[in-house]
Amino acid sequence: MSNLRIDQDRLWQSLMDMAKIGATPKGGNNRLALGDLDAEARKLFISWCEQAGLTVSVDQMGSIFARREGTNPDLEPILVGSHLDTQPTGGRFDGVLGVLAGLEVIRALNDAGIETERSIEIVNWTNEEGSRFSPPMIASGVFAGAFTLEEAHAIRENNGEATIGAELDRIGFKGDVPAAGRDIHACFELHIEQGPILEDEETTIGVVTLAMGQRWFEISVTGEEAHAGPTPMPKRKDALVGAARMIDLVNRIGFDFGPEAHATVGVIEIEPASRNVIPGSAWFTVDFRHPQEETLVRMEQALRAGCAEIAKGAQVEVDVKSFWTTAPQPFATELVDRVRSSAEALGYSHRDIASGAGHDAVYVARVAPTAMVFVPCENGISHNEAENATPEDCAAGANVLLHCIVETAGGTLPE
Amino acid sequence: MSNLRIDQDRLWQSLMDMAKIGATPKGGNNRLALGDLDAEARKLFISWCEQAGLTVSVDQMGSIFARREGTNPDLEPILVGSHLDTQPTGGRFDGVLGVLAGLEVIRALNDAGIETERSIEIVNWTNEEGSRFSPPMIASGVFAGAFTLEEAHAIRENNGEATIGAELDRIGFKGDVPAAGRDIHACFELHIEQGPILEDEETTIGVVTLAMGQRWFEISVTGEEAHAGPTPMPKRKDALVGAARMIDLVNRIGFDFGPEAHATVGVIEIEPASRNVIPGSAWFTVDFRHPQEETLVRMEQALRAGCAEIAKGAQVEVDVKSFWTTAPQPFATELVDRVRSSAEALGYSHRDIASGAGHDAVYVARVAPTAMVFVPCENGISHNEAENATPEDCAAGANVLLHCIVETAGGTLPE
Repeated sequence: MSNLRIDQDRLWQSLMDMAKIGATPKGGNNRLALGDLDAEARKLFISWCEQAGLTVSVDQMGSIFARREGTNPDLEPILVGSHLDTQPTGGRFDGVLGVLAGLEVIRALNDAGIETERSIEIVNWTNEEGSRFSPPMIASGVFAGAFTLEEAHAIRENNGEATIGAELDRIGFKGDVPAAGRDIHACFELHIEQGPILEDEETTIGVVTLAMGQRWFEISVTGEEAHAGPTPMPKRKDALVGAARMIDLVNRIGFDFGPEAHATVGVIEIEPASRNVIPGSAWFTVDFRHPQEETLVRMEQALRAGCAEIAKGAQVEVDVKSFWTTAPQPFATELVDRVRSSAEALGYSHRDIASGAGHDAVYVARVAPTAMVFVPCENGISHNEAENATPEDCAAGANVLLHCIVETAGGTLPE
Repeated sequence: MSNLRIDQDRLWQSLMDMAKIGATPKGGNNRLALGDLDAEARKLFISWCEQAGLTVSVDQMGSIFARREGTNPDLEPILVGSHLDTQPTGGRFDGVLGVLAGLEVIRALNDAGIETERSIEIVNWTNEEGSRFSPPMIASGVFAGAFTLEEAHAIRENNGEATIGAELDRIGFKGDVPAAGRDIHACFELHIEQGPILEDEETTIGVVTLAMGQRWFEISVTGEEAHAGPTPMPKRKDALVGAARMIDLVNRIGFDFGPEAHATVGVIEIEPASRNVIPGSAWFTVDFRHPQEETLVRMEQALRAGCAEIAKGAQVEVDVKSFWTTAPQPFATELVDRVRSSAEALGYSHRDIASGAGHDAVYVARVAPTAMVFVPCENGISHNEAENATPEDCAAGANVLLHCIVETAGGTLPE
């Protein structure tokens, strides 16, 4: 069993065949959730699953489950998968690798004639990206009870009229399997890292121990609009100067709270936005991430105290509003250990890593034992047509999945 | 002659009557250049001029000249005036005071039976504000040769199709007096300060010695767009962090180069402007003003050197582009001295002051001896419906104008 491997070329070929659907001129992919190209990708995936002898079902959120029956069908199944939808200027690996590596695991089991006690289901979650329908990870969110089915179906596309419910009907993917409440024995998701750490350290496998907690804020700075010409510097209440210092503070907090802290200002807007008028108001967003909740608490304290002090110095008012928070989500220790020992047994370099990004597996982890596997991506770039990963790294990730699944599902070699 | 005064109540009444045209709910004025309300204001002004016995002419830019003939009509005339157009949420004094104080000077001369050797012309310049048609001060600019008549007539309104030429025709104010090339003996403009200095120092009259030079820049910062979750702080090339530090630098330069330095960032834009994406690019404007050219040179040097250093530290690229510059414009020493001595003789507190804002008089100063008089405005606020000035201060400014004009025009009391 320890010599078992997936077929690197077949996995790569499937990735490249899938990437033809919604291919962009710069080598990326544009397959927005529930659009015609997403439907085409779903149908190709289903045809491959059927060729592999799997039984395909679709749930009320359009998520596809392709099942390889175990020898004991009454046992709770193992889930493995990710998503086939992409960002508008997305890449060929984000999500897709996790789904097609699941398929490749099944193909490898078929080739080797291995049976498993537990059933294995490859899953393609609907609308992971959230770029057409916000919020992201909506189907795994419903699966985990974070949203109701009705809420999810009613979500309207950005800048459009179509809803998730209507689009599921239109493309023929509103299934009747309940979208929540299923019992799962274990769930695995393979994903590109979307960051530079593994590549920088020349490490093949990221053993994902948890998903970072996030605290998002909206900060409003109020000063006084005035003419840029005749207003002396000491009299100014320049909202943008206050905001600029706070943005620098956010960045400093990112450095001050250790190598795992992340702090980002992604949006800023000012009024009146005229070249020769001192800005009277500024508004910006803050995104804090860290693996430890207590550190997030201290980062927030530093933000609030620092902004108050800066506001005083800049003669402006500041209002720091919590916008959204999510606690760190640990993965299941036993499964994380299994990812680590599989990588070790396969001879892959590995390191423990926290996921800074959200993933379907993070929702699933709320209701079932779950683990994730990361592989490197070129320059840490994702959500970009330039997103890239090597065939070898993709195969390494799929081999780790294979061994984790065989062990978790109770695999036996043919006699 | 030294007892000669304007009529404070009459001046105030005229200001308040004019303010009824385009009055806004919050007590301000909205009379955009060449709109129907501007036309109504022009007609009211002309009716008042005709009642005062003046001869009204209109030039090719629609500027109105209302002439009180001197005893020697061949001598070059004295100009006094400003503008009747306002910002969309403008006040009752910016520009209007300068025009109606000119009218009040004439009325006072009429009442006292004073004749002047030189003719006096009140001028209402077209489109000083520039909020409907950009750039501002377009008619005095044509008068001074900064723009051609054709360029000015072709200017299209912001977010619309109408041109200055077409709108002049439509409201019946495209005159046939040449808009440039006239010889002027002296020009005076009274204006609210639009800043807080006079009010803060409880000083009635600002003796404007010059208009500050201005250097405007556009700064582009280029970093690298990346996912806010998985990208470690030391790997980031955050364009907004770079820009934020540069905005703080601009503010510091404003303080570092003495009390007359002004430094403002009025506009900032970033891409891609998404809460959880590290900004890949930022763009912002810089507005530097100072009375001395050599200080502006040093401010620019400090900006360029500081931005380069910040860019290095933030791992981003920076490009500092000159956008527009104008040199400091001194006013005519003899006329400035006359403003000062008139204020002194009238018993008004006064101080020399530089104009940080642009004015029609700054263009006129390029082609004729010119001076300006400032009076305080409440809290230094202008370009705002809350703009305010006291009847006493308005009258003081008009009295300074009166005495300067009588002296410059060669006034004689009736026998």
